[in-house]
Amino acid sequence: MDKLPTRNKLLHHFYEHWRPQLGTETIPIDEAEGRICAKSYQSGNQIPLVRSSAFDGIAVKSASFSDGMPDTSVWIKDQDFCRADTGDDFPDEFDTVIRIEAVTFLPESGVKLDLSKEPVPGEGVRTSGSFMSKNDELVKEGDILTPLSLTSLLAGGYTTVEVKARPRVVFLPTGSELIKPGTPLTRGKNIETNGSLIKMIMSKWGADVTCLPICYDNHDSLRNAIFTALDSADILIVNGGSSKGNEDFTVHLLEKESSFFTHGVRCVPGRPAVFSLIQDKPVINLPGPPAAALAVLSWGIKDLYYHAMGSDAPHSYQEVILTETVSGAGPFDLYQRLFLYKKDGQIYGKPFSMKDSNAEVNQYCNGYTILHSDQSYLAGSPILADRLFSSVR
Amino acid sequence: MDKLPTRNKLLHHFYEHWRPQLGTETIPIDEAEGRICAKSYQSGNQIPLVRSSAFDGIAVKSASFSDGMPDTSVWIKDQDFCRADTGDDFPDEFDTVIRIEAVTFLPESGVKLDLSKEPVPGEGVRTSGSFMSKNDELVKEGDILTPLSLTSLLAGGYTTVEVKARPRVVFLPTGSELIKPGTPLTRGKNIETNGSLIKMIMSKWGADVTCLPICYDNHDSLRNAIFTALDSADILIVNGGSSKGNEDFTVHLLEKESSFFTHGVRCVPGRPAVFSLIQDKPVINLPGPPAAALAVLSWGIKDLYYHAMGSDAPHSYQEVILTETVSGAGPFDLYQRLFLYKKDGQIYGKPFSMKDSNAEVNQYCNGYTILHSDQSYLAGSPILADRLFSSVR
Repeated sequence: MDKLPTRNKLLHHFYEHWRPQLGTETIPIDEAEGRICAKSYQSGNQIPLVRSSAFDGIAVKSASFSDGMPDTSVWIKDQDFCRADTGDDFPDEFDTVIRIEAVTFLPESGVKLDLSKEPVPGEGVRTSGSFMSKNDELVKEGDILTPLSLTSLLAGGYTTVEVKARPRVVFLPTGSELIKPGTPLTRGKNIETNGSLIKMIMSKWGADVTCLPICYDNHDSLRNAIFTALDSADILIVNGGSSKGNEDFTVHLLEKESSFFTHGVRCVPGRPAVFSLIQDKPVINLPGPPAAALAVLSWGIKDLYYHAMGSDAPHSYQEVILTETVSGAGPFDLYQRLFLYKKDGQIYGKPFSMKDSNAEVNQYCNGYTILHSDQSYLAGSPILADRLFSSVR
Repeated sequence: MDKLPTRNKLLHHFYEHWRPQLGTETIPIDEAEGRICAKSYQSGNQIPLVRSSAFDGIAVKSASFSDGMPDTSVWIKDQDFCRADTGDDFPDEFDTVIRIEAVTFLPESGVKLDLSKEPVPGEGVRTSGSFMSKNDELVKEGDILTPLSLTSLLAGGYTTVEVKARPRVVFLPTGSELIKPGTPLTRGKNIETNGSLIKMIMSKWGADVTCLPICYDNHDSLRNAIFTALDSADILIVNGGSSKGNEDFTVHLLEKESSFFTHGVRCVPGRPAVFSLIQDKPVINLPGPPAAALAVLSWGIKDLYYHAMGSDAPHSYQEVILTETVSGAGPFDLYQRLFLYKKDGQIYGKPFSMKDSNAEVNQYCNGYTILHSDQSYLAGSPILADRLFSSVR
C-alpha cells in the first residue's frame, strides 16, 4: 500500500507517457471566458488615438494664460474654449482642460473661472495611448482568458481569439447496481449521481462533458462501451469497478488494453483510481463513492484536463484557520472536505468528520485541503485550502 | 462630496425602497448549478435502503463464529457466505462482512480466513440510511445550489428543483463616442467593451444578460431606449452619462423619471453611479470608465442581483499578504484591483498602481480589495481580498 505513488508522482509519471494532441480554434471573444489562449496578442489600437480630456470640463488654449489670467468673460465658445467631457477628443487648437467645477458659464457668452492659479499646459489631458498603447501585450499563450483580459482584446481591435481546443470529455458510469436519477430506489440499487457531479463541476472549467448511459457489469458490454466512447472522447472517465470486487471488470480491462497503466494512489478517498492510456487518450477509472470521485476529480482529472491544453490547472488557494484538529490518514494523504466561511473578517475552514451526514457535507462543503500523511493539524492553525464553489450560508 | 453615502448605506437605503417581485421556477437539477433554492428539500430516500457492505469482501453469518473460529474450508458459497463488494446489498441471512484481503477462496469450495479474531456481529456493514436518511435536510431556501448539494437532491429522489427566478438583466450602452468592437478606431471614438465585461462576469453568476445596441447622446432616444428596455428587464444597467458632462443626459433623465434616486457613492472609481427605481425596477447608471464599471459591478450590482432573489451575494473572500503599501483615496473608499498569486504556500495580493498599463492590469487582475478612506495599508500586512477569477499565470 505504501508503495503507491503520491498524487504528484502519479501525474508526473502519466505526463511522461502522454502527449496531448489537441489543436487550436478561433472563437468569438464573448465566448472565450475561461479558455486557454493559444498565442500572444498585442494591441492594434492606440487609445485614445490622439488625446482626450481627463475629466468633465472645458478645453482651453494654455497660451491664453501666458500673461496671467485673461478676461474670460469675453471668451467665445468653440473659439476660446469648448466643452470637453471625460474621454472626449477636442479640436487641435486646445491643449489644456479645466474642471467643470471651476467653470461658470455666463448668460450671454464667456465664462467665469474659479482657479487658484493659471492652468499648466497639458493639464487635464490624457495623452495619446494613455489608456492603451499600440503593441501593448494584451494576453499571452497559456493565459486563462478572463472577462478583463478579453475586454483588453476587444479594445485592442480584436473580435475573435485563438484558443486551445478543449478536450472532449466522456463519462461512462458502470455498475449493475446503478439506476438513473428519478428511478424509485429498491433494495441493492444505487442512484447514479457522479455523472451529474462531474458534468456540473467540469462545466465550470468550460469543459464539454457527455454522460453515457449506465453500463452494467459485463465484460463485453464494458469493453464495447469503452472503445465506442473513445471514438468521440479525448478524455474518458469510467466510473466504478476500480476496486477489488467480484465484478470490478474495469481495472482488468484497462490493464489489458492500455499502453500505460497505473492503479492506486497514496491519497484517500479515491485510493483505487486508475490512470491509463488507450489510443494515446487518458482513460481514468474513477472510484464509485461520491467522496472518492470528488477527490480524484479535484487533484487528478482537473490537472489532466488543463494539461491537455498545455496549462496548469487554476485553483483558488487560500489560507484559512482550521476550526477543529484533524489528522492525515496513516500512510495516505487525506482529501479533507471543508466548509469555508467568513466570520469577523477572518476566513475559517471547518473540516467535516464521520459524524456529519453526507447530506450535511454536500450542503455545506465549498472547499477542501489535502492533509499530508502522518501529520496532525491543530484547531486554530492556518492551512492552505482550495475553494470549490462560491456559496453563501 | 463627503456627504455621499458609503456603499453599504447606499444599498441599505435602496433596499428599503425596493421590493423585488420575482417568482420561482422548477428546473432540471442538471441545470440548477449556481441558482438560489426556493424551498427546503428533505431526502425521500433511505440509502442504503436496507444495509450494505462497507468494503469488498464476503458476507457471513456472525453466529458461525459464536463458538470460535469455524472450519471454513467446508463452507458452501451462497449458503455459509456470499460475495459482497463495497455498497452491495446481500441476503438477509448474512449480517457481517469480512474484507477480501483476509479471504482465500479454496479450489473446490470453502474459504480460508486470515483473521486475528472472530468478526463482531455487524462488522463491515453499513446500516440502512448510513449514506443518507429519509428526511435528511438536503438544501434549504436561499441556498446557492452547488454541484454537491444538487447530487444530494438527485440521491434524495429528485430530478427537478424549485429555484428563485433570475432577474432578467438588460445592458444599455450610451454615448455618441462609442463604437462597436471590431469597428476601426477613429479620432474621438471609443470601443464599447463594458457590455462584454458585464455579460461575461454576470454570466458567471448564472445571470441572463441582454446587451442592447449603443444609444447615442440624444435625450429622446435615450428615454425611449430606457422605457423599451424596461418592458423586458428586471434590472436595467445604463452605461455612461453618469457624470457632469454636457451630454450626460442619463442622470437627469433618471432623476426625473424615477420613484427613488441616489447619485454618487463614497467609493472610487465609480463615484458618480446612480441607483434608481423606475416602475419598481432597479435602473443603475454605471460610469463609463471600465475600472469604474468593474468596481460598481463588484460591490453594487452583484449585491443587488442576488438581493432580487432574496440571497446575499456569494464572495470568495480570503486573507492575502499585500506586496506594496497602498492608501485609501482621501474621503473615499478605494476599489483596489489586485493580482492574487501563490508563492511558497502563501497567498499574496499585488495592488496595481497608476504606473501599470490598463492592458497589464486587465491581464493579471483576478481579485480586489476595498481600502477604507484615510487609511494606509503597509506592504506585508494581511488584507481581506475577494477573488474575481481563478486564473493561472
